[in-house]
Amino acid sequence: MAKSEKRYALGIDYGTESARALLVDVSSGREVATAVYAYSNGVITDRLPGTKTRLPAHDWALQDPEDYLRALDATVPAVLRKAKVRGDQVIGIGTDFTACTMMPVKRDGTPLATLKEFRANPHAWIKLWKHHAAQPEADRVNETARRLGEPWPQRYGGRISSEWFFPKALQILDEAPQVYAAADRLIEGADWIIWQLAGRETRNLCTAGYKAIWSKREGFPRRAFFEALHPGFADVVDAKMSREVLPLGARAGGLTEAMARRLGLAPGTAVAAGNVDAHVAVPACTVTGPGKMVMIMGTSICHMVCGTAEKNVPGQCGVVEDGILPGLYGFEAGQSAVGDIFAWFVRTCVPAEYAAEARKRKVTIHDLLARKAAAYKPGQTGLLALDWWNGNRSVLVDADLTGMMLGMHLGTRPEEMYRALIEATAFGTYKIIRTFEQHGVAVDEIYCCGGLPERNDLLMQIYSDVTGREFKIARSAQTCALGSAMHGAVAAGSAAGGYDTIQEAARKMAGVRAKAYKPNAEAHAVYDRIFAEYDALHDYFGRGANDVMKRLKALKGVA
Amino acid sequence: MAKSEKRYALGIDYGTESARALLVDVSSGREVATAVYAYSNGVITDRLPGTKTRLPAHDWALQDPEDYLRALDATVPAVLRKAKVRGDQVIGIGTDFTACTMMPVKRDGTPLATLKEFRANPHAWIKLWKHHAAQPEADRVNETARRLGEPWPQRYGGRISSEWFFPKALQILDEAPQVYAAADRLIEGADWIIWQLAGRETRNLCTAGYKAIWSKREGFPRRAFFEALHPGFADVVDAKMSREVLPLGARAGGLTEAMARRLGLAPGTAVAAGNVDAHVAVPACTVTGPGKMVMIMGTSICHMVCGTAEKNVPGQCGVVEDGILPGLYGFEAGQSAVGDIFAWFVRTCVPAEYAAEARKRKVTIHDLLARKAAAYKPGQTGLLALDWWNGNRSVLVDADLTGMMLGMHLGTRPEEMYRALIEATAFGTYKIIRTFEQHGVAVDEIYCCGGLPERNDLLMQIYSDVTGREFKIARSAQTCALGSAMHGAVAAGSAAGGYDTIQEAARKMAGVRAKAYKPNAEAHAVYDRIFAEYDALHDYFGRGANDVMKRLKALKGVA
Repeated sequence: MAKSEKRYALGIDYGTESARALLVDVSSGREVATAVYAYSNGVITDRLPGTKTRLPAHDWALQDPEDYLRALDATVPAVLRKAKVRGDQVIGIGTDFTACTMMPVKRDGTPLATLKEFRANPHAWIKLWKHHAAQPEADRVNETARRLGEPWPQRYGGRISSEWFFPKALQILDEAPQVYAAADRLIEGADWIIWQLAGRETRNLCTAGYKAIWSKREGFPRRAFFEALHPGFADVVDAKMSREVLPLGARAGGLTEAMARRLGLAPGTAVAAGNVDAHVAVPACTVTGPGKMVMIMGTSICHMVCGTAEKNVPGQCGVVEDGILPGLYGFEAGQSAVGDIFAWFVRTCVPAEYAAEARKRKVTIHDLLARKAAAYKPGQTGLLALDWWNGNRSVLVDADLTGMMLGMHLGTRPEEMYRALIEATAFGTYKIIRTFEQHGVAVDEIYCCGGLPERNDLLMQIYSDVTGREFKIARSAQTCALGSAMHGAVAAGSAAGGYDTIQEAARKMAGVRAKAYKPNAEAHAVYDRIFAEYDALHDYFGRGANDVMKRLKALKGVA
Repeated sequence: MAKSEKRYALGIDYGTESARALLVDVSSGREVATAVYAYSNGVITDRLPGTKTRLPAHDWALQDPEDYLRALDATVPAVLRKAKVRGDQVIGIGTDFTACTMMPVKRDGTPLATLKEFRANPHAWIKLWKHHAAQPEADRVNETARRLGEPWPQRYGGRISSEWFFPKALQILDEAPQVYAAADRLIEGADWIIWQLAGRETRNLCTAGYKAIWSKREGFPRRAFFEALHPGFADVVDAKMSREVLPLGARAGGLTEAMARRLGLAPGTAVAAGNVDAHVAVPACTVTGPGKMVMIMGTSICHMVCGTAEKNVPGQCGVVEDGILPGLYGFEAGQSAVGDIFAWFVRTCVPAEYAAEARKRKVTIHDLLARKAAAYKPGQTGLLALDWWNGNRSVLVDADLTGMMLGMHLGTRPEEMYRALIEATAFGTYKIIRTFEQHGVAVDEIYCCGGLPERNDLLMQIYSDVTGREFKIARSAQTCALGSAMHGAVAAGSAAGGYDTIQEAARKMAGVRAKAYKPNAEAHAVYDRIFAEYDALHDYFGRGANDVMKRLKALKGVA
């Protein structure tokens, strides 16, 4: 390859419904080609593909490992072709994944789901991040940790989610001991895909830290804890996992001959260690230091900020040393439904005349509602909602909380409720920011990326007004894939035309837009008064003063 | 008229949007003909008809007195014609009216609104019952009564509504002193229409007692109280009203020659004293004794029950001796929005696909929602609402409260919310019944009438299950008009072929249906648990623990 030729990095972003490959010019960050593959088996919630097995309960969510390989086949050659880039111009590959998305595999990486004898067993398949059927196991993890006085829950806001690694693994052992026994490894999708690319089992620090209760100083929870959960679970780490954990941007290995041939890339191309989708977005938003919060705003919101010391913030999803940026403590918090709430509203609560008007004006119903809602000033709807349509992830860490809205009268219009829902999610973010600050984690700047900033001007302004902060927007519309490509460039290193640190990669490859959202002081003053109301109801319904939401949820089972 | 010929009574029911005439066979209660007139100027909320005057605020609601006369012209000759009944076969006329619906008139009954010099002044027009712009005056009435230690507020649940007579009269004095000065009389529509029919100014006990703070034992509030409100208001009773009050079913006079000619009736036909629409329905449901609650269930619900002693029940709309049935204390309570909430929901919150499905199945959207909602068991939606979309009339007497719903999640469907709203209104009724009982007013049986029992099976069953009571339904679908006709028959008296008491009229002319709604014990047990949650939130949001609804409403003005 001629020295003057452009070098590229490939970022592959494994999402919930699809995977995206993005080819990026390493020198400038210019995105030269992208391709998307929608998983042929999507999110499996009802029946296992190609079988007659129905999933046991509605909170199951599985995936098919073959979809991850089909995604590579469908997208990697496509971006090379589109960009007219030769495979050997690609110097590094980075990936990012939903997490915790985990599966049982054989010693050679073969997923149990692909083996005939296990194919009809739901527990052999991939448990997607939003598989919520391990709640009883999560409850046991939390109770046991409390009972034994384990030190690590405080790193995770006091409570482990049913979405995480050990509850899911324990559910396999509880409900399908034969699958558990047959699994040589239990592995994150994020690490499994690296195994497929580089031919080598690795474990990445990010999922280990945020989803599998690992920390640089303390490692995994102790054997006695796992044993207390289930005698057969005592050796889960040593028998089914690995204690070797690769830091972010590390080179996991070189692309295998077979995979290089399959994808049209050069063998030995640097493959970066696995990553969590949200976390790679941080440097892709230009953020490489402490005090700068990155928000990925889509169906849900993930809030990430780095600090220089470990702090235990109530309801944080986790603090992991080196977890987001090397040398810093990475804090994560989240709102479990944001865009999902607006989608629910559009699907469930918008009258036919609005659908007709949107059609006539050739806009989406979201856009129509946003336009109408923009005519209201802060406080003018008289409505207030709690954004708990999918529980509360931070700061209450309580999946059993539900949505609430008040202030409706006979003249209340759909756009007012839509606006109230946007405001509620903004209050949720504000609560998270304030909680970080109250516990010693600075949030001096805010950077955003994801689908919502791309298309919802009103929402962004409301977030800015509610929080009283400027919201900067990442230049890229595909920050996760870009962040992955950046990690690919770091895995390649400067010798190969890449970068030696993520900071350097961020300086060259990332950027923010000229347009930022700035808070209006008057609006913020009104919102501060409404936030006080939100806060009071947040505590009333969320901290035990009135557990009506939980009692109603429990009654659903009785009825 | 031959002795063997049938005798008829005419009931005229003046509603909010229209008036209905009903011709009833006095001997059997058979309804032989009906006709409806929709007011040509309807409810005036925006611009005064035939003028350029816009109404000052959104909580105004006026009416045109000429619509009441046009209603007579359009319906009375029509029912005679339809039934092939001669005018002289009609022995009595009863009417009922919305209340307090009041207007300023000249000494001869001419409404100021019909006079050129006042036509453009909104205060010259009829203030409809749901005109809510006199809230500041209502507040002054309540504060002043508290300050002066007046004895009567306890008869009205502790608080006077902005809908009632004196707040509306005081608003005229405050905002249009020239209209107040020019008004020789301030009069209820209920009494004005009698004046038009019988040529004589009368005042009926029902509106006087329930809307104008009159009682048989104490009369009107004292002069000093009115003076404290406004010096110019000191003489309001003696200068603008009358202290002579006619009991229910009394003969106000005979039909005038002119009106008899105009309507095709016989001059001198007995005209009963005015009535409130809700109250005439009580005997039309067969109820003529204590302990039997009558609920008129439509856009709102009016609860009426008679007792043998005066009790002060928190949040009752009023207790009036002889106010519903002679010789008994008539208690009234109410829910300010019921059917209105469902209509709001159908208008505002039901997606296009439901509208399409309803069209396809040739049912209304209400029916479609009810069918889908019927598939849920009590407690199964996990939702709970407070039915305060139009404030709370009983037991909190607070127009500034607003609606609330909680329990929503990403899978919540429109029919679940619809069901939760029905349940919320049933809880509101249950709260009213329990409050009556807790304060010594027995509620042994429940009788219903109005639009909702006619068409909403699910709703009726839910009310029965929530309250644990049987709900009997009036035979007539037009109980108000029937009740008016019954009062017309009583005004005529037995000598003229009518009846001497309303009890006798009820025995002959009223009835209930064979089908009643009976409570399911299991459902009631679940609903009792949910009602406990409703009750806790009712008190939390309604009794000052968290006045968020009021603060948000106040903020709307600031915004």
